Amino acid sequence: MSDMTLPISINQATTRPQWDLREAVEGYARHGVCGISVWPEKLEEYGVGEARKLLDDNGMQVAAYCVGGMFANYGAADEGNVERLCRRIDEAASIGAQCMIAVVGTLSSDSLDLSEARRRVADGIDRLLPNARSAGVPLAIEAIHPMRAGDLCCINTLEQALDLCDEFGDGIGIAVDAYHVWWDPSLERQLRRANGRILAFQVCDWLRDTKEILDDRGMMGDGVIDLPQIRKWVEESGYCGFLDVEIMSARNWWKRNPDEVVKTCLERAKTVC
Amino acid sequence: MSDMTLPISINQATTRPQWDLREAVEGYARHGVCGISVWPEKLEEYGVGEARKLLDDNGMQVAAYCVGGMFANYGAADEGNVERLCRRIDEAASIGAQCMIAVVGTLSSDSLDLSEARRRVADGIDRLLPNARSAGVPLAIEAIHPMRAGDLCCINTLEQALDLCDEFGDGIGIAVDAYHVWWDPSLERQLRRANGRILAFQVCDWLRDTKEILDDRGMMGDGVIDLPQIRKWVEESGYCGFLDVEIMSARNWWKRNPDEVVKTCLERAKTVC
Repeated sequence: MSDMTLPISINQATTRPQWDLREAVEGYARHGVCGISVWPEKLEEYGVGEARKLLDDNGMQVAAYCVGGMFANYGAADEGNVERLCRRIDEAASIGAQCMIAVVGTLSSDSLDLSEARRRVADGIDRLLPNARSAGVPLAIEAIHPMRAGDLCCINTLEQALDLCDEFGDGIGIAVDAYHVWWDPSLERQLRRANGRILAFQVCDWLRDTKEILDDRGMMGDGVIDLPQIRKWVEESGYCGFLDVEIMSARNWWKRNPDEVVKTCLERAKTVC
Repeated sequence: MSDMTLPISINQATTRPQWDLREAVEGYARHGVCGISVWPEKLEEYGVGEARKLLDDNGMQVAAYCVGGMFANYGAADEGNVERLCRRIDEAASIGAQCMIAVVGTLSSDSLDLSEARRRVADGIDRLLPNARSAGVPLAIEAIHPMRAGDLCCINTLEQALDLCDEFGDGIGIAVDAYHVWWDPSLERQLRRANGRILAFQVCDWLRDTKEILDDRGMMGDGVIDLPQIRKWVEESGYCGFLDVEIMSARNWWKRNPDEVVKTCLERAKTVC
């Protein structure tokens, strides 16, 4: 809709079942895309060295390194978990990721105390952040849709994510995924408040006939999210990074030819975002 | 968990496919339940006169009359819709419902403008409220889970619902359904703010392995909602009406013997709420 100022990246999740890391990097590049967001499970199939070469050979930048379940079931003092996450930070640095998206986890299996989970997450961030700072990899706290509060993430609004940023200061910002936040009555207010702290911006669409909680996202333009409006607010907050297309779609796009998927992502990003 | 001070009602939706209105009223009464929440589709099968007799004969009170899609696709000035809703108000009054739960609707089919939908809803309430007041039936605005913002309801937080109450004053309050609001970081604050304005309180549970957006609710105690905590806040806000058990469960409870369902609802309401 607007003049396309943000460069487009494709998130690997968009072609998760079709392409491994090499196929994705080469496939996206083939369509003129110069950014990718990478997942650890996919990186591990190649290793950091080979991945780095693949990315460089194809002139591909890494918009984000996407890490889930960071503090799920872990105490802040769990050294094994901190070590695991520090490795993720090193991986993010090694592939030149512009940020590490943090999906922080939620209730441990024996608890119903969401406030406690939220405190545990803050403690975990506190423990991890010095490592992220020294590696030069900013943490992007992602607000995840409330329908995933029970199984995935207890940070469910931009307000919570920005409160964490206020608390911790340097080296931390937010990831804005339109899919997770479009419904929020305080969306405009929070995006204005973000002012310079948006580290990643992800798009897809919310289908009117959404049935599944997992992996039922729509292509931009096929649903109800006012993407041009959200993008405008995101840009007005000072964001000038990638517009990252992330579509987990078990019923549709994951079943299609991935070249067709990428082509459609690019067309739609240009015409409806 | 706490001493059971709130009387228990069963929402008809809990036995929707098994029982019609007569069967539900008689069935719930058979288990010693003295409250029911009624849906228009079910009421229409009998008509107001016969329903009233059924309720009286079984000593059954109506906790709430549950009306959906109130202003979906309708302008505030749509006289046909206002007439339809006034009939609902009259029905609620005729069966002695303690409130009319309002699920207000959302985006019209040709719009992505959620702010506009929210303004349209406020206009609709403004238009309808005098009728509710003169009928003596308070409107209970229900905050519906954000995952239904695209297809069901654009009031998605207690804060929004209470803002509407602040705006309109007399004859309006809120319905608190734990399923829709348990994830909200401002839950405690909003329930304190509600102070005397909670007109209905509904319970069920959020299953950890929730897959479906429609009708995949859990029995109290089978999921992750801290029901005793929410109930405590609700009671502290001055609520002393029914604890209404509303479980739409296509995969489980809707397939069972409804007498077993009601029995389980009562046991769980007493032991885990």
